[in-house]
Amino acid sequence: MALSLEGIKVLDLTRVLAGPYSTMILADLGAQVIKIEKPETGDDSRQFGPYIEDESAYFMSINRNKKSVTLNLKKKKGKEILLGLVKEVDVVVENFRPGTMEKLGLGYDVLKEVNPKIIYAAASGFGHTGPYSKRPAYDAVVQAMGGIMSITGQKGGKATRVGSSIGDITAGLFCTIGILAALINRNSIGKGQKVDVAMLDCQVAILENAIARYIVSGIVPQPAGNRHSSIVPFEPFDTKDGEIMVAAGNDVLWVKLCKALGIEKLAYDERFLTNPLRNKNYNELRPIVAKHFMEKTTKEWQDILDDIGVPNGPINTIDKVLKNPQILAREMIVEVEHPRAGKMKMPGIPIKLSETPGTIRTAAPILGQHTQEILKEMLNMNNEEIEKFKKLNIF
Amino acid sequence: MALSLEGIKVLDLTRVLAGPYSTMILADLGAQVIKIEKPETGDDSRQFGPYIEDESAYFMSINRNKKSVTLNLKKKKGKEILLGLVKEVDVVVENFRPGTMEKLGLGYDVLKEVNPKIIYAAASGFGHTGPYSKRPAYDAVVQAMGGIMSITGQKGGKATRVGSSIGDITAGLFCTIGILAALINRNSIGKGQKVDVAMLDCQVAILENAIARYIVSGIVPQPAGNRHSSIVPFEPFDTKDGEIMVAAGNDVLWVKLCKALGIEKLAYDERFLTNPLRNKNYNELRPIVAKHFMEKTTKEWQDILDDIGVPNGPINTIDKVLKNPQILAREMIVEVEHPRAGKMKMPGIPIKLSETPGTIRTAAPILGQHTQEILKEMLNMNNEEIEKFKKLNIF
Repeated sequence: MALSLEGIKVLDLTRVLAGPYSTMILADLGAQVIKIEKPETGDDSRQFGPYIEDESAYFMSINRNKKSVTLNLKKKKGKEILLGLVKEVDVVVENFRPGTMEKLGLGYDVLKEVNPKIIYAAASGFGHTGPYSKRPAYDAVVQAMGGIMSITGQKGGKATRVGSSIGDITAGLFCTIGILAALINRNSIGKGQKVDVAMLDCQVAILENAIARYIVSGIVPQPAGNRHSSIVPFEPFDTKDGEIMVAAGNDVLWVKLCKALGIEKLAYDERFLTNPLRNKNYNELRPIVAKHFMEKTTKEWQDILDDIGVPNGPINTIDKVLKNPQILAREMIVEVEHPRAGKMKMPGIPIKLSETPGTIRTAAPILGQHTQEILKEMLNMNNEEIEKFKKLNIF
Repeated sequence: MALSLEGIKVLDLTRVLAGPYSTMILADLGAQVIKIEKPETGDDSRQFGPYIEDESAYFMSINRNKKSVTLNLKKKKGKEILLGLVKEVDVVVENFRPGTMEKLGLGYDVLKEVNPKIIYAAASGFGHTGPYSKRPAYDAVVQAMGGIMSITGQKGGKATRVGSSIGDITAGLFCTIGILAALINRNSIGKGQKVDVAMLDCQVAILENAIARYIVSGIVPQPAGNRHSSIVPFEPFDTKDGEIMVAAGNDVLWVKLCKALGIEKLAYDERFLTNPLRNKNYNELRPIVAKHFMEKTTKEWQDILDDIGVPNGPINTIDKVLKNPQILAREMIVEVEHPRAGKMKMPGIPIKLSETPGTIRTAAPILGQHTQEILKEMLNMNNEEIEKFKKLNIF
């Protein structure tokens, strides 16, 4: 079956998470992604735990479907080879600190001279412009600076980091969107362009209504615990044996919830008739609802609420996520066979396309696994040249 | 200046957040987005606070650049008009509960008969397949079920909801990627396809290394506080007057950090030489580093660490985000003039394109603001017909 991005070639200079996450999506959707790695050590994340048979499970889970070519970009011949590859591809992606590619003599200006149709995507901590541009950043830093930590956490508690690196991941997602938009646009304008995505910018872009709340009220948003900031009831409740998340997002669901709880009268109590009223009278409403949830187990409430159509769910730990029937039915946990590490489970592809679905074709590459293959295929190098450059530590 | 997605027409049946977030990105990048809303009440989120001059700031912040057409899809003529519009556009996006469009007689099968080139994107809680497919969901439910809550929170504390609706937002991002990939693919296969994105799936896709950690160790990941799960030191430290996030992501940065703290000897202490060792001996390392951070203010440490190149940042609240020089320099806070609500600040566009940058051209529409304009322009309706259908409550 055909793949959506078949025929699109991507030269992938990225490391760690934001960039590799973006090129993983491109690869899952069918692009040919050629990962350029430092000889000997490769992508930094090859050194991140946990390990399976000395292979980084971290690296493996975000580098499937890619090919690995080692190349020393500090050597003149390494740069020449890179520029040769740039001529053959559609997209270059990097997530170095701004200025690094220029220092190597491989900035966008140089690359577009070689290939004016190239789309050059850069994901960085602070972006390629602005006073902080050249500063280094990691996920935790942009989560801290971008505001998301300040609104995450238990009520009255400390600012809390989101438990996965969404600073990187959202930058990877926006970067992917930018690349695809530039590819679409290239058909009209006939040339490439630069896509500049900053992790910090992306954190601002996902703040949702926090900015609006602050501007309208003048009150600085704080960690609000597990409550929705403006909808009631929309939070977890303790049950007889655990917790259940309940999201009665509108007046109809509020009435249904009251019926399910056996407190139908409450639905028509004038203190709680509309969402603005439920917000206003939250401190009266919560204990009543909470008391009733203590009467049954999470599973019992799930069945009752599912039946009546009130959105709800258990708070799953990772072991439960891996067994969830819906997640399994959607192929969101896939098992990929790695030549060294064996079978490994990882997240599947969340973009389900009816005609050209994404596929997982290969495990993450071993460092330099495809150096010879790619140099022969794309640059017509012969064995002799490859051997010579190998001895010169070019790859 | 041209826009990347100029010429792409999107019929937007979405409400609340996941869908509108996706079509906002398409609109920011230049697509013509025609938002179809229920007559009289419109998008549910028009009822979500906070309000400015009776206009929902929530709605305004994610519906800029769109046009609003009211249409009653329960009436036969309303459906006819919708199908007429489907013929004229490239993409249809909806985020109803699966089955809703079919019940209206407007499922993908019907729409693709009318326009085989249509790309039909559906963002839903659980997706269009699988045992939970028809269940309702909101952000809080998928954050709970997808695992992210179980790994977010203070160490030893409760599972914590991420403070913005990343269940919706990540689905909006993946949905946008799916739409753009399908548009690219349409040039090859000459027909459209269905893009099915589930919020729950997207939560699994952003779990980062939590799945790998669980599989390798057998230990169920818990909220880990603000520490990185595998890199040390990579967490906030208390200072003389607040906190500072520090991310020494590799051995070189570790050495630099020790120099900055005036404890250079520690860098070469054999207990802390490599990241695996720093992980292993974390309980010995943390108090030493923490003690030194108490000696200066956050601002003093920021200057010292910036100078030496160690990634760091303050934990900004929303008021500080709105004043951050980098965020402002990147135009990530924009002011949009709304005809009723006046000037309103909202996040800018995080995808910075060099040749065809996204733009914010118009504020969010008033309900039905463009009904006449679009029906005249796309379906050649005249004033008389429009008046007639208005009386019949078609819009």
